[in-house]
Amino acid sequence: MKPAENYCRTIIAQSDSFEIVSIEWNKGAHASLHEHGWSQCSVLIQEGLFEDRMELGSKTELRLLEAGQSFRTPVGAKHQIKCLSETGKSLHVYSPKLNAETPRLHFNADFPPELKKQLSLSDETRFDHLSQIINSIRDESVTTRSPFFMNQLFSGVSAQMLLAEEVLAQCKTTLATHEASPVFTAIENEVVDRLGAQIGWAAGKRDGVGVPGGSAANFMAVHCARHQKFPAFKTDGMDGQKFKLFVSEGAHYSFNKAAVALGLGSKSVVNVPVDVNGRMLPLALDSLIEKSIAEGATPLLVSATAGTTVRGAFDPITDLSAICKKHQLWLHVDAAWGGPALFSKKLMDSIKGVALADSLTFDAHKLFGSSLTCSFFLTQHVNLLLEANDVSGADYLFHSDDQNLDLSPDLGKRSWQCGRKADALSFWTLWKSLGTQGLGQMVDQLLSVRDQAVHWIKNQPRLELVYDPEYLNICVRVLPTLWESNSNENSSKNWSIYVREELKRKNLAMVNYASDENGAFLRLILANPELKFEHIQEILTNALAVR
Amino acid sequence: MKPAENYCRTIIAQSDSFEIVSIEWNKGAHASLHEHGWSQCSVLIQEGLFEDRMELGSKTELRLLEAGQSFRTPVGAKHQIKCLSETGKSLHVYSPKLNAETPRLHFNADFPPELKKQLSLSDETRFDHLSQIINSIRDESVTTRSPFFMNQLFSGVSAQMLLAEEVLAQCKTTLATHEASPVFTAIENEVVDRLGAQIGWAAGKRDGVGVPGGSAANFMAVHCARHQKFPAFKTDGMDGQKFKLFVSEGAHYSFNKAAVALGLGSKSVVNVPVDVNGRMLPLALDSLIEKSIAEGATPLLVSATAGTTVRGAFDPITDLSAICKKHQLWLHVDAAWGGPALFSKKLMDSIKGVALADSLTFDAHKLFGSSLTCSFFLTQHVNLLLEANDVSGADYLFHSDDQNLDLSPDLGKRSWQCGRKADALSFWTLWKSLGTQGLGQMVDQLLSVRDQAVHWIKNQPRLELVYDPEYLNICVRVLPTLWESNSNENSSKNWSIYVREELKRKNLAMVNYASDENGAFLRLILANPELKFEHIQEILTNALAVR
Repeated sequence: MKPAENYCRTIIAQSDSFEIVSIEWNKGAHASLHEHGWSQCSVLIQEGLFEDRMELGSKTELRLLEAGQSFRTPVGAKHQIKCLSETGKSLHVYSPKLNAETPRLHFNADFPPELKKQLSLSDETRFDHLSQIINSIRDESVTTRSPFFMNQLFSGVSAQMLLAEEVLAQCKTTLATHEASPVFTAIENEVVDRLGAQIGWAAGKRDGVGVPGGSAANFMAVHCARHQKFPAFKTDGMDGQKFKLFVSEGAHYSFNKAAVALGLGSKSVVNVPVDVNGRMLPLALDSLIEKSIAEGATPLLVSATAGTTVRGAFDPITDLSAICKKHQLWLHVDAAWGGPALFSKKLMDSIKGVALADSLTFDAHKLFGSSLTCSFFLTQHVNLLLEANDVSGADYLFHSDDQNLDLSPDLGKRSWQCGRKADALSFWTLWKSLGTQGLGQMVDQLLSVRDQAVHWIKNQPRLELVYDPEYLNICVRVLPTLWESNSNENSSKNWSIYVREELKRKNLAMVNYASDENGAFLRLILANPELKFEHIQEILTNALAVR
Repeated sequence: MKPAENYCRTIIAQSDSFEIVSIEWNKGAHASLHEHGWSQCSVLIQEGLFEDRMELGSKTELRLLEAGQSFRTPVGAKHQIKCLSETGKSLHVYSPKLNAETPRLHFNADFPPELKKQLSLSDETRFDHLSQIINSIRDESVTTRSPFFMNQLFSGVSAQMLLAEEVLAQCKTTLATHEASPVFTAIENEVVDRLGAQIGWAAGKRDGVGVPGGSAANFMAVHCARHQKFPAFKTDGMDGQKFKLFVSEGAHYSFNKAAVALGLGSKSVVNVPVDVNGRMLPLALDSLIEKSIAEGATPLLVSATAGTTVRGAFDPITDLSAICKKHQLWLHVDAAWGGPALFSKKLMDSIKGVALADSLTFDAHKLFGSSLTCSFFLTQHVNLLLEANDVSGADYLFHSDDQNLDLSPDLGKRSWQCGRKADALSFWTLWKSLGTQGLGQMVDQLLSVRDQAVHWIKNQPRLELVYDPEYLNICVRVLPTLWESNSNENSSKNWSIYVREELKRKNLAMVNYASDENGAFLRLILANPELKFEHIQEILTNALAVR
């Protein structure tokens, strides 16, 4: 449906830094649904009655506006008003000046030498020049807000997140002490408690802390598991015994980093084989645990991955839990990517048994689009974080004389960080905006897009669906044309890499790749709430056209 | 000098979300120097010639403005324009509506129950309501931008930082790979390189990585020291030997946390006695090292603190370096708080010998007011970060086939984090704005304020300067009146704590406290670039008035 164009737009005043526009409307007239680039738009209704429609990622909000009402359209939202009365009049203030161009996709990994020169810290710079450089930095950075950005496990920049980040910058403070951040402490506690509830842990069994990324949460899991089993290590240090950590072959590399940093050594990580669906094999796990015991090692922890990085597989938590119980091992769930399944009706089966976990990694900056990073380490062992992490020597900071650790309101005692930003606000705003159900719908909507895309891919002779996706990773191999595959067998195996680079070079899409025994394949990550099937179709059509 | 008031202000349009004001000026007329709360102000000069004066923390920028020119005053700056021509006219657009009230100081550690209720995530919320709640969150949070906030090792919210945070949120990306953040990777590299130069390390001997806070940098120091001495631990894990880490009695508690997490145990931390100035005693260090060797332990690292948390003492780096050389130990400098001394002419002696350090912790979010956190771990052992931290299992992410580690452009390989925000931008903007010299002046200006304050304190009979300050910590004991000290000896020892709570309760100041054998004392931290002697005088006058 073509938008009615019968409105009259008059520019009242205009400069590089703002724009004031008056619009006169006839009944039924409406602007097309548009975003304002990075411009903030304030609207005052001067005459008439309007319907205001705002799209916030997966959520649409409608309301009526009467003369005298005003509002600010948040940066990052899409917006439209429509005149319901015979005539209407509105005043629009853009700050900075509206950039009417649709933001182009920009994925260039290189950037202009002029900007490179401007990045040098060799001289002082006036603020207006600094602002210009900052604009270039923004323009030359990867447009991760585009639905065509599928390279990482996140995509999109939401209005809710921008709102949170603005206030966090203005209120610069630290979560270390309650005193310095009473409200943000309450917000982190609320998010931690609600996530615990979503996992299925009973009230009073929900503890956790914000950490600087999913890798840090996985570190904390190994650290807590070790502390629970060997509390004396806290003071005395490790005594030379060899630990074993069991993760699937598809698990995140952060367990390797954790093993190194925590003093266990990378050899402590045992990669357990997976089934055809990429899920850890419980029997294989059991026998690898037995084997490690026979070899004199100390099995410590099993991490079930909920949503592996490459294919989005979910390990069978209930089965793994039984094995952990048998051997008295800590069961961690790395749900950094797959955590949103906790909110989705469609993925209930995938994440079944999660309440049995001792701890869980949750990243809100991935699918839920919070600011990077917004991660949580959650555990049902209340007080363990405090016991494992609280140390002496901080009397200047933590003044509580309360000997009862769990009554301390200072989150810093549970953390490895001292000064810490209240990242939780950025997930809190999304949760508050969409509600618990809305978070689930955000996941389910992307699953529908996936289903459409998978159906379409299966009908393309030169596209090979590498795995039937359980989650929001589509692994698809682009096959070269017959001519191309005949000309060079090696390039045929790496054809998807070539395609990927071409898509990137032409600013058509930024997708990542991985490899199996048959060569490379594209990995499409569905994480942007504005993603439609048509975007995927366009990307893959362009991928097929690469020569 | 009283500002000339002969200008005429007309409100053109006004709503909750914006304000458009037209001002007509006579020659010499100027608004008083003011900040706009959290409102952005765009100005268009319509007629005449003006002088624009902008105060950005410690920096003042002046320029001439002619008819037709326009600019945006950044949030967080103070601003004034003055008419130079016979008459003048300007148009001002505020978004959101200007909050003309001077922002009140707000330090209430508790917050209203209505807001507490609104923090619950039990229902979905319309965006306009969410914005209102966010405003309450901001209003009820501690006003850390106030010069009367001296509670933490940071104070103030700068325009440069807000500019950086805005663009970081809009460009949401990760520093893990160069591909996902080409410009931000270059910016972090520039900051790391320039900090290395400031330390005095030669070109080619400057390596480092952004870390989530000073505590994380201290962790990394111990981790790197261990890896350098025992590279086999990376794969095999620790073998049971007992390490020792030597830090002064005034060192930060993060070494205790590091020792616990890294598997060394808190007993590995040896607190070396200090002299009357709070500086680690080299002879005591030497004999404690000898003792630990005699007891069969393995001395690993000495951390010299540059700016201790309570009194701001600087350990004698050159002397400690000689001892480290003798015993082949890693010398770390924890300059989380005192790092700005690297830029100050007045503090050259305090930080002397810093180039001898193997590594250094630098927090830009403290005195330099970058967003929290903006921290760096720096080392002159190029490649060690990569060798200590790069692991297998991340082929899906790091695609570089380059076997030469130091050529990898992906910063993620040096880090413990995977997804990582480009915090460096927030220090980069300040550095770019002030220049290297300007950063030094920012420190020296606060040192002058300190000197005035110390002089004044010494003349107050009921104020006891606990230490002669070397840096920007003023430790001052408030003595009770004779009547109060006679009435209760115990309360007399804790009088400063009582005073501190009263100042906080009355929203007069937020300062922290610590204790020595004579009881508690106030710790005033001078970190806000807008801090004047008069602020300290006011705080301490109010402290003396407490009954």
